[in-house]
Amino acid sequence: MARLVLKFGGTSVANVERIRNVARHVKREVDAGHEVAVVVSAMSGVTNQLVAYVKEASELYDPREYDAVVASGEQVTSGLLAIVLQAMGIKARSWQGWQIPLVTNHEHGSARIDSMDGARLIESMSSGEVAVIAGFQGIGPNQRIATLGRGGSDTSAVAVAAAVKADRCDIYTDVDGVYTTDPRIVPKARRLEKVAFEEMLEMASLGAKVLQVRSVELAMVHKVRTFVRSSFDKPEDIDPYGNPPGTLICDEDEIVEQEVVTGIAFSKDEAQISLRHVPDKPGVAAAVFGPLAEAAINVDMIVQIISPDGSSTDITFTVPSADFKRAVDILSKNQDKIGFTTVEGQDDVVKVSVIGMGMRSHAGVAALAFKALAEKSINIRAITTSEIKISVLIDAPYTELAVRTLHSVYGLDKH
Amino acid sequence: MARLVLKFGGTSVANVERIRNVARHVKREVDAGHEVAVVVSAMSGVTNQLVAYVKEASELYDPREYDAVVASGEQVTSGLLAIVLQAMGIKARSWQGWQIPLVTNHEHGSARIDSMDGARLIESMSSGEVAVIAGFQGIGPNQRIATLGRGGSDTSAVAVAAAVKADRCDIYTDVDGVYTTDPRIVPKARRLEKVAFEEMLEMASLGAKVLQVRSVELAMVHKVRTFVRSSFDKPEDIDPYGNPPGTLICDEDEIVEQEVVTGIAFSKDEAQISLRHVPDKPGVAAAVFGPLAEAAINVDMIVQIISPDGSSTDITFTVPSADFKRAVDILSKNQDKIGFTTVEGQDDVVKVSVIGMGMRSHAGVAALAFKALAEKSINIRAITTSEIKISVLIDAPYTELAVRTLHSVYGLDKH
Repeated sequence: MARLVLKFGGTSVANVERIRNVARHVKREVDAGHEVAVVVSAMSGVTNQLVAYVKEASELYDPREYDAVVASGEQVTSGLLAIVLQAMGIKARSWQGWQIPLVTNHEHGSARIDSMDGARLIESMSSGEVAVIAGFQGIGPNQRIATLGRGGSDTSAVAVAAAVKADRCDIYTDVDGVYTTDPRIVPKARRLEKVAFEEMLEMASLGAKVLQVRSVELAMVHKVRTFVRSSFDKPEDIDPYGNPPGTLICDEDEIVEQEVVTGIAFSKDEAQISLRHVPDKPGVAAAVFGPLAEAAINVDMIVQIISPDGSSTDITFTVPSADFKRAVDILSKNQDKIGFTTVEGQDDVVKVSVIGMGMRSHAGVAALAFKALAEKSINIRAITTSEIKISVLIDAPYTELAVRTLHSVYGLDKH
Repeated sequence: MARLVLKFGGTSVANVERIRNVARHVKREVDAGHEVAVVVSAMSGVTNQLVAYVKEASELYDPREYDAVVASGEQVTSGLLAIVLQAMGIKARSWQGWQIPLVTNHEHGSARIDSMDGARLIESMSSGEVAVIAGFQGIGPNQRIATLGRGGSDTSAVAVAAAVKADRCDIYTDVDGVYTTDPRIVPKARRLEKVAFEEMLEMASLGAKVLQVRSVELAMVHKVRTFVRSSFDKPEDIDPYGNPPGTLICDEDEIVEQEVVTGIAFSKDEAQISLRHVPDKPGVAAAVFGPLAEAAINVDMIVQIISPDGSSTDITFTVPSADFKRAVDILSKNQDKIGFTTVEGQDDVVKVSVIGMGMRSHAGVAALAFKALAEKSINIRAITTSEIKISVLIDAPYTELAVRTLHSVYGLDKH
């Protein structure tokens, strides 16, 4: 017997018929003797409708009231799933964030979880009752309803799993796991059986949109084994040992044969900005990046090159392409203060990343990437690396070629 | 300065544009220096949609889960109104039933209010904040969300008014008050300026659908002055003293010139059942009405006539016409036990009632009704009376004629 947390997103609970499908997944685990908590999102489309109402009411809305409005979507789904489960003969009850309580900080609209007391849930689950939890929501200061931001139900599920000391957190989604790269670009992409938390974190933050980044962080901190699987899988997808297809996100210790490279991620919607001839003196970085930070523009991949004569530097960095124009405007307004000669930009660039825990103990991993890209005449605009990741910035038209080349050169095409 | 509770129903908050109209009403009262709490229903149509989801999930639903689902409608409206008020520069915050808390009993789906602590609301209102309260909902045992049943927002509003010791509870609806009778039937029907609680209770329970019966009971017990007015009234409707059209439901002491008859109410959808030759012995009433009560069929207007030889009686009573067939079935199955010879029925009858506090101190009020109806050749099938009400059961086709006749004979046509 295990204690499981199951999470279902908006597409999986889009209508009552699909909620019945969710209930069948729950019943299977209950019949197998497991203690089960289920975390649900709002029916797909509902949150968007509620957000539209809020914005129609006022663009400058009080985030506490926004939260009261949008949290209602998950409330509805939790009640409906509890009813469907009961109709199947399974003991179940719904839980709102404030009932658990899942306590958040004051950052309404994208609140962070401060604490979560699993006692009431554990009591309920131990009595053989399925706990049906409204995802995405908690209770903030002064007893106000708070929400965790878009995709927050993943975070709810992992938090619940940590609080009830679950053996596993199953994230049911519309894909059947995490792939070595996007299968729409590389048909030979393989589903990964296991991924380390750290690797998943890099993939999630780089645009592999399977899991919300914060949920992966939380899973890593609390070592919550998280299994990504499809809510629409069919009996024939289950292997002879009863295992459904999916990807387990777990501690690296649990991955016996660590691959050098686990996957190739890429992130579109990047823009590159270069400042030419910035005086090379202390405080210049603050002058460049301070105003951007104040405007809440996220800066990534900073590269600085000193001019041959040592008197000035070129600074290149990336921003989200949605913020490109705004960033250039802000920099131009601060030209005198910063002291650059020209600002140049390119909003049609892509960041491609090679990710793998194994590269910590292997030399030459980066060199292999640069050589392979050079052979295909793909120009590298900037490079950043971390212990488990190499990222290169390239021109957008080369995205598919670069991803396929890297996927192949690191042996990910092979079965 | 007064402390006011304003209540707006589903039609008044049907969309964000109408919610803005509601906010203008609130602003007017705030600008006049009043402390204001607002109670809102769900946007019209929303509750029906949520109930439909619940029934699709299972006809045999857990009423606690039903409550979690349907209470979400009022949650949305309360948040949206708070946002719109803030956008108009008015301090406001939303309150869910569990936040107040408005504590109910265990009867989920149509829970009764057990207690209500006005302290937090008073604190909020005293600080100049408009309290925007989700109607219809409270918190039941074990921290579960509970709803007060259809039309429960009226009851919420009166309960809030009692708890915060409001000077008045304004019920904004789609009619501009309580009339002497239905103006669609009697064009000369007049709006009543004031109605005593007891009279309104009789009118409400008889089908004048302006206010939920329970809210009138609650208003009577706590002496909450309740003003029924239209949420769509125009500036030209306001009298020179600044008073909008409407009806005040209040203690009889506040009504200086008590009318003998205040209004003529009628209730369609009644059915009459007669049992012939029931043995006249103790326990027979229990044998007749016990099985009907068990089937939750509401029995009204019971009339018993002993046969000339005293050996048996005829029993006549009414039930809601929706329950007519079921009631006849149940009685037929119990024929041997009860011992009647035949059961006869008529499901096309109407109860017409003459209501007025003044009739307690006036003789001949009933006789006037019987005479007037006889002059129009309207057959009276049954009669029941109370201190402040005379009800007659007649054939449905005579409804309009009877109502008009009674309205005229008691002088209600005159201005």
